[in-house]
Amino acid sequence: MIDVCLLGTGGTVPLPDRWLTSLLVKWNGKSILVDCGEGTQIALSQQRKSPKEIDTILLTHYHADHTAGLPGLLLTMAKSERTEPVTIYGPKGLEEILQGVFIIARYVPFEIRYKEIRNREESFMIDDMKITAFALQHSVPCFGYSFELARQPKFDVQRALKLDLPKMYWGRLQKGETVEYEGKVYTPDMVLGDPRKGIKLVYATDTRPVPYIESHAVNADLLIAEGMYGDPEKIENAKENRHMMMQECASIAAKANVHELWFTHYSPSMHDPWQYEEELKGIFHNCIIAKDGQNKDLAFQE
Amino acid sequence: MIDVCLLGTGGTVPLPDRWLTSLLVKWNGKSILVDCGEGTQIALSQQRKSPKEIDTILLTHYHADHTAGLPGLLLTMAKSERTEPVTIYGPKGLEEILQGVFIIARYVPFEIRYKEIRNREESFMIDDMKITAFALQHSVPCFGYSFELARQPKFDVQRALKLDLPKMYWGRLQKGETVEYEGKVYTPDMVLGDPRKGIKLVYATDTRPVPYIESHAVNADLLIAEGMYGDPEKIENAKENRHMMMQECASIAAKANVHELWFTHYSPSMHDPWQYEEELKGIFHNCIIAKDGQNKDLAFQE
Repeated sequence: MIDVCLLGTGGTVPLPDRWLTSLLVKWNGKSILVDCGEGTQIALSQQRKSPKEIDTILLTHYHADHTAGLPGLLLTMAKSERTEPVTIYGPKGLEEILQGVFIIARYVPFEIRYKEIRNREESFMIDDMKITAFALQHSVPCFGYSFELARQPKFDVQRALKLDLPKMYWGRLQKGETVEYEGKVYTPDMVLGDPRKGIKLVYATDTRPVPYIESHAVNADLLIAEGMYGDPEKIENAKENRHMMMQECASIAAKANVHELWFTHYSPSMHDPWQYEEELKGIFHNCIIAKDGQNKDLAFQE
Repeated sequence: MIDVCLLGTGGTVPLPDRWLTSLLVKWNGKSILVDCGEGTQIALSQQRKSPKEIDTILLTHYHADHTAGLPGLLLTMAKSERTEPVTIYGPKGLEEILQGVFIIARYVPFEIRYKEIRNREESFMIDDMKITAFALQHSVPCFGYSFELARQPKFDVQRALKLDLPKMYWGRLQKGETVEYEGKVYTPDMVLGDPRKGIKLVYATDTRPVPYIESHAVNADLLIAEGMYGDPEKIENAKENRHMMMQECASIAAKANVHELWFTHYSPSMHDPWQYEEELKGIFHNCIIAKDGQNKDLAFQE
């Protein structure tokens, strides 16, 4: 199960009633934060989420509305007596950004590891979660992220019983290991059923609606993506500053056949994104105009 | 008249219901901001104050709860189409801090001028406001600031009428200029009455209760100062981290004979600073346990 909490839904400028867009992804005792603008640590506190537990921070790009909360967050994690390292991922230029962060934060008593994403697409594992960074089209290098939690096939007890293998070895087969016993080799496929659908979450903000988003979002359980503007007259602003209209975003969700779509990263000029709800549901029915603190548990389907 | 707005009252960590301590001082079309922690731009917005108008930023010291909001504030000022320069004052090390700010903020389209305060006490004028930075005792170099607005003596029409000087010259005498007319020299003291009390505002946070605060706060109309803790058991924390107890702060206000005292910079551990109100009023009667947005117009007294 993945616990998803969209801490804020604003773009560009934090507002008194709208935190900047940031996502907290929790599963299996692990916590990943995506982006950290000014105020994200307050949004975490408001949602009663502990900053101490964040192991990994994924940065989409280096505009300040996605990074300026890092000094404060890291210091608050320090005050909560975190001692374990934190790993930060982001586009090229991360080392310089962290220099800026440490000038302002000064003393952070735990280790910060950092990894720059150098290719248009890169995957890495955090625990059993496969994360893929994929390039978006913004005014500076920017990445979307997909989170995939695979599901083990069902263990077929009837098939296992037919093997001459003591039960004490079953667990290893179930974990995907090969077992040798009395000169015979046993492989997981002998006891495991058909592949089962895992969970996929995809996050894409600060981008024009490039096909790359759709291909990554295919069949996702949840797509969280940018809806900077709803007013069709804003299309030139969207193109100029490399942002995505709500309608463009809904079309991607429809083509990618996602299960559910959440809009986020609203322009400060858009006071009421809900006014476009009916139109957007006409493009993609299962869309939600997310609010700060929007959350959901994504579970394996039975 | 000085328009004083305490944007936040928190210390160390911004909370969902308490912004970090920051002060906005406005007079005569000029705006000075003192400190800018994470969220200060949101607090400004909540108080319907325009960040665009801030000409000067005074920094007390370089702990992140007093500086980490600078990248966001400067970018929001840029979005509001400010083009005039902004001047930032602070202790030694300001240049490095601003390097960090610009790494995170990246592009700020107006000029930032900066002036490091190198002495234990330094005064400078901003328009007709005399500002004095004075050293406090914190774990890093830290300054308090006093703001003094002088008041011109009253123009004595009866005395002016007795001079052989046409009325068209009166205005220059009133402004403090010397006038020569038909071979005679006229000086301002010939038409001005007794000196009149101006307005004094004093701000001191992040410090032990050193005598220097008292000497600067003497007869101030308003002292805004740190009350990090109210619980007497916290005195060791206060000493160790160089902070001031509410009781210590109230004693300074009493000895300095200030007109009014506002407490600020409450520890995140102190959820209810108002529980100490009665005790504090016993030490200094005219004290206010300030809330975010506490404001007052300081006017010349009649």
